[in-house]
Amino acid sequence: MRVIGKPLPKIDAWAKVIGETKFGDDLFLPRMLYGRILRSTYPHARIIGIDTREAEQLPGVFAVITGKDLPIKFGILPSSQDEEALCVDKVRYVGDPVAAVAAVDEETADRALELIHVEYAPLTPVMSIKEALDESRDQIHAEGADHHNIHKMVSLEFGDIAAGFAEAEYIHESSYFYEGNTHLPMEQHVAVAQFGADEHLTLWSSTQTPHYVHRALAKTLGLNASQIRVIATPVGGGFGGKTDPFSHEIVAAKLAMLTGRPVKIALNREEVFYCHRGRHPVLMWVKSGVRRDGEITALHFRTFLDGGAYGSYGVATTYYTGALQTVTYKIPAYKFEGLRVFTNKPPCGPKRGHGTPQPRFAFEVHLDKIAHDLDLDPPEYRKKFVVDNFSKTVNHLTITTCGLGECIEKVVEASGFATKAESKSPLPTPPPRAGEGERVGAIRRGMGLACSSYLSGAGLPIYWNEMPHSGVIVKVDRSGSVAVFCGSTDIGQGSDSLLAYIVAEELGIDLKDVHVFTADTQLTPVDLGSYSSRVTVMTGNACVQAVRAVKEKILEAVAQKLMVPAESLVMQNREIVCEDDEARRIQWQDAVILAEAKFGTLSGTGSYKPPKRAGPFKGSGVGPSPSYSYSACVAEVSVDTETGNVTVDKIWIAHDVGRAINPLLVEGQTEGSVYMGLGEALMEEQVFRRGVHKIPSMLEYKSPTTLETPDIKTILVETLDPEGPYGAKEAGQGPLLPVPPAIANAIYDAIGVRIDEVPIHPEKILKALEEKAKGKEARVGPKEIPNVNFPAPIHVEPPENAPKLGRRKLPIASE
Amino acid sequence: MRVIGKPLPKIDAWAKVIGETKFGDDLFLPRMLYGRILRSTYPHARIIGIDTREAEQLPGVFAVITGKDLPIKFGILPSSQDEEALCVDKVRYVGDPVAAVAAVDEETADRALELIHVEYAPLTPVMSIKEALDESRDQIHAEGADHHNIHKMVSLEFGDIAAGFAEAEYIHESSYFYEGNTHLPMEQHVAVAQFGADEHLTLWSSTQTPHYVHRALAKTLGLNASQIRVIATPVGGGFGGKTDPFSHEIVAAKLAMLTGRPVKIALNREEVFYCHRGRHPVLMWVKSGVRRDGEITALHFRTFLDGGAYGSYGVATTYYTGALQTVTYKIPAYKFEGLRVFTNKPPCGPKRGHGTPQPRFAFEVHLDKIAHDLDLDPPEYRKKFVVDNFSKTVNHLTITTCGLGECIEKVVEASGFATKAESKSPLPTPPPRAGEGERVGAIRRGMGLACSSYLSGAGLPIYWNEMPHSGVIVKVDRSGSVAVFCGSTDIGQGSDSLLAYIVAEELGIDLKDVHVFTADTQLTPVDLGSYSSRVTVMTGNACVQAVRAVKEKILEAVAQKLMVPAESLVMQNREIVCEDDEARRIQWQDAVILAEAKFGTLSGTGSYKPPKRAGPFKGSGVGPSPSYSYSACVAEVSVDTETGNVTVDKIWIAHDVGRAINPLLVEGQTEGSVYMGLGEALMEEQVFRRGVHKIPSMLEYKSPTTLETPDIKTILVETLDPEGPYGAKEAGQGPLLPVPPAIANAIYDAIGVRIDEVPIHPEKILKALEEKAKGKEARVGPKEIPNVNFPAPIHVEPPENAPKLGRRKLPIASE
Repeated sequence: MRVIGKPLPKIDAWAKVIGETKFGDDLFLPRMLYGRILRSTYPHARIIGIDTREAEQLPGVFAVITGKDLPIKFGILPSSQDEEALCVDKVRYVGDPVAAVAAVDEETADRALELIHVEYAPLTPVMSIKEALDESRDQIHAEGADHHNIHKMVSLEFGDIAAGFAEAEYIHESSYFYEGNTHLPMEQHVAVAQFGADEHLTLWSSTQTPHYVHRALAKTLGLNASQIRVIATPVGGGFGGKTDPFSHEIVAAKLAMLTGRPVKIALNREEVFYCHRGRHPVLMWVKSGVRRDGEITALHFRTFLDGGAYGSYGVATTYYTGALQTVTYKIPAYKFEGLRVFTNKPPCGPKRGHGTPQPRFAFEVHLDKIAHDLDLDPPEYRKKFVVDNFSKTVNHLTITTCGLGECIEKVVEASGFATKAESKSPLPTPPPRAGEGERVGAIRRGMGLACSSYLSGAGLPIYWNEMPHSGVIVKVDRSGSVAVFCGSTDIGQGSDSLLAYIVAEELGIDLKDVHVFTADTQLTPVDLGSYSSRVTVMTGNACVQAVRAVKEKILEAVAQKLMVPAESLVMQNREIVCEDDEARRIQWQDAVILAEAKFGTLSGTGSYKPPKRAGPFKGSGVGPSPSYSYSACVAEVSVDTETGNVTVDKIWIAHDVGRAINPLLVEGQTEGSVYMGLGEALMEEQVFRRGVHKIPSMLEYKSPTTLETPDIKTILVETLDPEGPYGAKEAGQGPLLPVPPAIANAIYDAIGVRIDEVPIHPEKILKALEEKAKGKEARVGPKEIPNVNFPAPIHVEPPENAPKLGRRKLPIASE
Repeated sequence: MRVIGKPLPKIDAWAKVIGETKFGDDLFLPRMLYGRILRSTYPHARIIGIDTREAEQLPGVFAVITGKDLPIKFGILPSSQDEEALCVDKVRYVGDPVAAVAAVDEETADRALELIHVEYAPLTPVMSIKEALDESRDQIHAEGADHHNIHKMVSLEFGDIAAGFAEAEYIHESSYFYEGNTHLPMEQHVAVAQFGADEHLTLWSSTQTPHYVHRALAKTLGLNASQIRVIATPVGGGFGGKTDPFSHEIVAAKLAMLTGRPVKIALNREEVFYCHRGRHPVLMWVKSGVRRDGEITALHFRTFLDGGAYGSYGVATTYYTGALQTVTYKIPAYKFEGLRVFTNKPPCGPKRGHGTPQPRFAFEVHLDKIAHDLDLDPPEYRKKFVVDNFSKTVNHLTITTCGLGECIEKVVEASGFATKAESKSPLPTPPPRAGEGERVGAIRRGMGLACSSYLSGAGLPIYWNEMPHSGVIVKVDRSGSVAVFCGSTDIGQGSDSLLAYIVAEELGIDLKDVHVFTADTQLTPVDLGSYSSRVTVMTGNACVQAVRAVKEKILEAVAQKLMVPAESLVMQNREIVCEDDEARRIQWQDAVILAEAKFGTLSGTGSYKPPKRAGPFKGSGVGPSPSYSYSACVAEVSVDTETGNVTVDKIWIAHDVGRAINPLLVEGQTEGSVYMGLGEALMEEQVFRRGVHKIPSMLEYKSPTTLETPDIKTILVETLDPEGPYGAKEAGQGPLLPVPPAIANAIYDAIGVRIDEVPIHPEKILKALEEKAKGKEARVGPKEIPNVNFPAPIHVEPPENAPKLGRRKLPIASE
């Protein structure tokens, strides 16, 4: 292959580096107004009244709107239509949108916001999972309903969990907490709306999901869907934070409709923290039963999610905290209980790894503890029980290829993990660094390993109907130019380039011959958007189908002209050559002209819908994917026992990507995931005091810089998965997952203490070391789990080829 | 039908009337430079040297280029690649581009032009057909070659011309001259070029033919065709004047490539007169043989075209001055000799009616003379010999439907022509108008009739290969929104609307559901452009094919859902209804969602190539068309015998449009054609003195205003032609043709003098009246025809079902 598998630059690389790319905030339309949103200063309150008269009188103000102008609720999931573009009766977090203004400039709009007078009646705020479960606190949604502040409760049992624990030779229980954090994209959210003379609404927005925004606009504005066009501008970082439809998008549209002028709303950095939809804080309890060799016989997993003020993707997130544990190692019996609460904080939603980094952290640390308890080698023990290729999990997920065994081998070999782990002792303290004096405490070094898996796109769309998840139309014309139309949204991951690579590979042409049009609900066929790591596999498959439909015609026309069989023709280097007689060849453009004359306008259409693989139970839609990626990670850390500072010295990560369509991009995605996992492990968190976000700025919200980011050694493992284009699987999210547990396990290796919650701050290290010195439990982590009566689980029979209990009871040939 | 045949507004009407439409000159790109072109001040000269040093030093100047930077010649026809974007060795008319500058603003660029010093060596200018045939004048092209200043010579004979004249009972010869004139679009030409970081060139241009511009750019700039994107901006008037690729388009592109910044070149009004490519001045000689009843037995037609300095479409124009005479009335023997010369004037090309208004003027006045000579009723006589439906002409053109007979009846009835003509005398002089005193001369009124026919698109593309002439891709998505992609170029005639009408009709949806993307060589499939009245028939046919491909899928899905046969389903009012059981119905959007789930992404592709109908001779490519429109026109005029002023009081025009897809637009096109024909008949002309255009401004170039435009009564005749979508034929050009001869014939009816040349100025009227008063020939027109030795004609046998000679010799049943 000439293009696939090659480390080529992105097709938009030049435009990005020289500043030619126009992001949403670079859009300026004639007569454009600027919108600003007034946000609640209360975490939980009733709106008694809003007086906008003074604001309306301010010169330069064109419109002032409140909740009564946009009363229709919206939300991303059909079951969570609980948001208002501007709050009608209640506010539910500090930052909740209350009113909006369109004015000649942002200063005037801001001044007008100051002139809007809102009268609130405060309610008791609910700021934690514990407070949410306290029924004496005020209810956030649907007051009077008996769920109080519980948003979603799930209880599922796969296989015979009691038999699994009965078969266990060792049972281990532990609790974990994963703090919430946010995406921190470089680009703030921005939307520009225009309502044309023809009564068509166009919205440009920095969104990962233009089609879902389209749907929310149609619903809230009462327009025909066909009158609305949503164009995703190039996204300057999404990571899941631009996957919901947002208030400011709807508000900008409404203001444009009311004023007849274009309206731009660009969020400031503080507002981005309010609409973040980031990582849920999750409290977890794990109980597993294993045999002496580490084989899991039963797993019981409980998650408590702090969802913030609205539903967002939270129902899916809740399921995700349970669904994918089974995809990594063989688990013959599994019980999952999940619970999501509403709190008076900005709503949480999907962030890279959506709902899975938290349980992965818990599970991989839990396994590390078991390995130490049973004196097992962490990599060997994990490798032994990796899921089988082309098998099913106990919860009815379909495994295609699994390269996790190879991933483990590769990182172990590259990092020298086994050798160091075998020594069973911390590495020697390094000599003081230049400029460092004598030290009280030692620098201890350690290594830890963790594994993970992730989806290549979700099995269901977030619509009510069956549909293609991705569609691609390819047009080829006599200039030799190929236009590719696809709704996919390039959020920096390179999805536009992916389309170009596939077309260039299939047709044997240059990347410069390919012109990609994407992310426009009117111009391009539907594509669900850039989330759940779905684009490479789903859009890629649709693109392969579309381009091959055109290719077939071109080859037929050329075969006829050259009087050779079409099967003998190869497309390469802008030529079509007969393999059997290389003198018979024709230039690319001439071939197109021939085919165009023979068949008329040349186009091909492809679309992709994932295989139907849901299990026979409610909630089974969350988890299935055409394929799963696998990662293994080794982290090497230095812990300063005096300050508690943890330095990650190096990360080795091996990722089974199926096929690296562009290894450069996959490495980039992997490094980005590692960087983000590092931040989550050591420093990132959302911190609230009295309902107010304490650190809503890039200065105060701690995130790693290049200085904190270690050398990352990425190893790509290719398993050529049959479900993906050229064998590809996901790459953009999975590699984040094993990083926090690998670091936590490395810290244990270094200093013998367990930090069972992230972020792992120095004070937690010091506290654990202090306890250890006192001879107490050397652990920082949740001490207790809420006492909740989960409903009786729905029992689900595992599928035929899932891992089975009672292995030892089967007759074994020679043992 | 709900949409087709209804007088709906254009889909871009609102955007146009409120100023939302962005024309080329409304484009402003960041860091854009302004280009200006230095033009020759000599009509004919050698370039000795160009010194650009001083201009290059001027602050604010980014680039100065001359012919050496763009040495590759271009031109629209394969056989006329004779233009240079900037002249290399010679200039050939005042206005010929010589050098160009890109600067920060237009003022700086203009100042820089003044600092470019060009040394010329003047040559003898050639300013008329007569001078062009004078071999003592300098040669304009390919000096030394033996054609001297003759560009093209054609000599063809169809059938037995000698036998035809031998069979004639009356032979009439006359000469005519049709002065050149220009398109005078409201919008001046403008091009904006951008050469991106990705080495792709984008050119926005006010052009009727983006694909032909694309080809010229690829050739002259040495870029891969697939690296170039041409986007036609909304055209503020074209009329053929934006059908060539132009110097300023290539120059803008080159300057953008050299400077790395976008470059805009907007021509000023004077420059538009230089690059006009307007109506050729044509001198004509007609000889026809007729029977006593007016039946034509032989026609001999000679045309001499003054082509200006370059080839442009001139070879085609030359053929067009001969090809279509046979399409209106039965002609059994036809000889055509045509000749085009180069002169040192701005090159002529296609203007509304391309090469046919001139011979139509000559032929229809000629027929009027014969009618008077033989005492025949002009309409009855014409009607009798109209071509037959579904026949062939002597020169191998295929007639499908012909509604000319009905057109004649309709205008005669509406105008009362027969009654007035029968009176054989001028109408009574009207009383003096208010404020007018006693008059010396009388106001005489008269009526005249003329007919014509025109093509619905040309049979051949202006490429070297066979190809689809129009392609359409239709995409339908779950919002119920339909995107239509087509390369057609809306130049105000409403071609974008046409696509929307067809899609809305076929799918039973609203125009607001349809979104049209056109005129972009990269985004849309090929369409040859807006010329030769080709769009409605060719693009329309491609669109019908494309939309029906999608429709079929939608109906299949709905039929399955409703459990009824697909044939019983009707699409109307955004619903699909079973005709046999109206309770079985489904909403449009739901139907799309069903079909999308069943078939994947919904798209349909259609393309159109006209039937191959060329005759067996060289040059036979000019003339064939899928179908021909027909017009009949009656003009009523008042001639002031004192001043010579002619006032056109009313025009009745009947046009056989096959089917009026939107009668409002067809009427608009007809009225526009009549208005333009009126200008050509009475006032418009290009006037040169010493090689310089005397009146290159809207102030001085005389064109009718609303004050001179009479009441126009348009009558649409529908023949439902099998070649066109829903039966449609052309409408935008044909109705111009009969207007000048109808006016000339009306003048004769009013005052008994023949003005055999246009424009018909008052001084010509007065001169003819003076001659008449003296008892001399009451005629103004060419006295002599150049004595040219045309080559021996190529003799072509007429096809089987062409009009035959020897009718009277056939046995006739009962006579």
